[in-house]
Amino acid sequence: MKRPEFSSMCAQSSDWFMNLQNQICTALENADGAGKFKEDRWTREEGGGGKTRVIQNGNMLEKGGVNFSEVWGKLPAFMAGRESVSNTDLFYATGISIVLHPKSPMQPIIHMNTRYFETSSGKHWFGGGIDLTPHYINHDNARFFHTELKKVCDQFSTAYYPKFKNWADDYFFIPHRNETRGIGGIFFDNLSETTEYSKLERFNFVQAVGSAFAPIYVSILEKNKSLAFGSREEQWQKLRRGRYVEFNLVYDKGTRFGLETNGRIESILMSLPPQANWEYAHVPEAGSAEQATQSLLVKGIDWAR
Amino acid sequence: MKRPEFSSMCAQSSDWFMNLQNQICTALENADGAGKFKEDRWTREEGGGGKTRVIQNGNMLEKGGVNFSEVWGKLPAFMAGRESVSNTDLFYATGISIVLHPKSPMQPIIHMNTRYFETSSGKHWFGGGIDLTPHYINHDNARFFHTELKKVCDQFSTAYYPKFKNWADDYFFIPHRNETRGIGGIFFDNLSETTEYSKLERFNFVQAVGSAFAPIYVSILEKNKSLAFGSREEQWQKLRRGRYVEFNLVYDKGTRFGLETNGRIESILMSLPPQANWEYAHVPEAGSAEQATQSLLVKGIDWAR
Repeated sequence: MKRPEFSSMCAQSSDWFMNLQNQICTALENADGAGKFKEDRWTREEGGGGKTRVIQNGNMLEKGGVNFSEVWGKLPAFMAGRESVSNTDLFYATGISIVLHPKSPMQPIIHMNTRYFETSSGKHWFGGGIDLTPHYINHDNARFFHTELKKVCDQFSTAYYPKFKNWADDYFFIPHRNETRGIGGIFFDNLSETTEYSKLERFNFVQAVGSAFAPIYVSILEKNKSLAFGSREEQWQKLRRGRYVEFNLVYDKGTRFGLETNGRIESILMSLPPQANWEYAHVPEAGSAEQATQSLLVKGIDWAR
Repeated sequence: MKRPEFSSMCAQSSDWFMNLQNQICTALENADGAGKFKEDRWTREEGGGGKTRVIQNGNMLEKGGVNFSEVWGKLPAFMAGRESVSNTDLFYATGISIVLHPKSPMQPIIHMNTRYFETSSGKHWFGGGIDLTPHYINHDNARFFHTELKKVCDQFSTAYYPKFKNWADDYFFIPHRNETRGIGGIFFDNLSETTEYSKLERFNFVQAVGSAFAPIYVSILEKNKSLAFGSREEQWQKLRRGRYVEFNLVYDKGTRFGLETNGRIESILMSLPPQANWEYAHVPEAGSAEQATQSLLVKGIDWAR
């Protein structure tokens, strides 16, 4: 399908996301010291394509992806009626999507997605989020992560961080486990012109979030890279990765959108860990570090305090 | 919630399923020689409960469950309007649900579910299925498995096997991978009195399917227990288990029903393997046994021939 006529923001945001992909991959390769991203370019029959960059078996990064995509076409059936879009609309979507599974259980899994969406009837919005999923919650890391995100938000509005932090608590939640995926972060969607900001200001905000990703995660990787661990921590890591799989396959909207729009399956499922374990009715030992982490997987903790 | 008044088939089928659970667990423990099922009884706040029996780290069975449940209450929102049931109806559901993950990659994963469903407005039906997911497809095992299921079906109607075999091909399918979960088996749902058989005949069919489970799987375990394997086969097993996770979390209706009816989560997710791996864009080597299996994960193969 030939790309329909959309606003200039499509090309503008898409170019920016593609450039961000380069910056982030370079920063992560430098931090890892060994792993290299492998790029696969793909096209989508219904319109558009992307550049998937995957790293496997690095020094610090065991498996992950930094994916760029730019797709368009008919709206998937499940979106019609939502977001005030009609099912005769065409859509354009571009963005960057990242999940990194570190080798060390003492390092957190990180996820970021930022995206721009437009429909042929003139709706357009930005969305995105960053969240951190430590296998073992470390209060210093958690405070650092949330404080950095708050700084980014506060440049635009002091209302942003509290709003987007709560949104992340609600979004990155596994109802059937009654637990959050990790320590959350920020999540925002449908940032449209009719809300607080002009299209340009919203784009600036998304750019600020995207640009903050690599410095924040590289700093966390550096801080925790010498922490010791053994088979006990590795076992726990694999159980926590199992929860990550549950969230992504059952609830994640990006995954669902990808599956329903005939997205490139290997790019969508790059978010899955190299290995995940399930053990029937596992309960962390009383008083253990695992139990301490489990007890903190709840909404509403003010990590930036 | 007190159990509402339902037909006598509820207690009759429920008693039978509970007894089947005992028979199957005994047969599997005898075949395994080391593993023992651990029972957890649970109750559901909204009505009913079950007996979950899980085996872990047996000789041949690495992880699996043979679960009985009997639940009732308000219909979950997602079912209203489907199956001609109204959302003010109460429902009653009982059944047995089994998934077994063998330790050896040369042994197949097996699944069976049989269930009876009734609503307070007088609808009632049986459903169920058995399917086999070999990590490596062995034609003799596949023929044996399908031939045995065909024998069970043919006792009732020669129309059953072709119909239910095709239904299994369609049901145990992973659209985003464009592959079947394994070699299928039989699947049937909404067997109601208005179709071919009386309530009693349908119950007899479900009983025949349930009774066939243990002899079929034990026979397959015995046949393949001396087959050698190494780390290559174990790696492939874990990738195949990853696909099993994808099917169960994204598509399986039983899992979805459990998640949406506030089922006991550890019982529902007993179907997940002890370990599953994901590797970006893995492609089996040309001419390998793994590729041979991959090429057979398609609908429409007449395995009983």
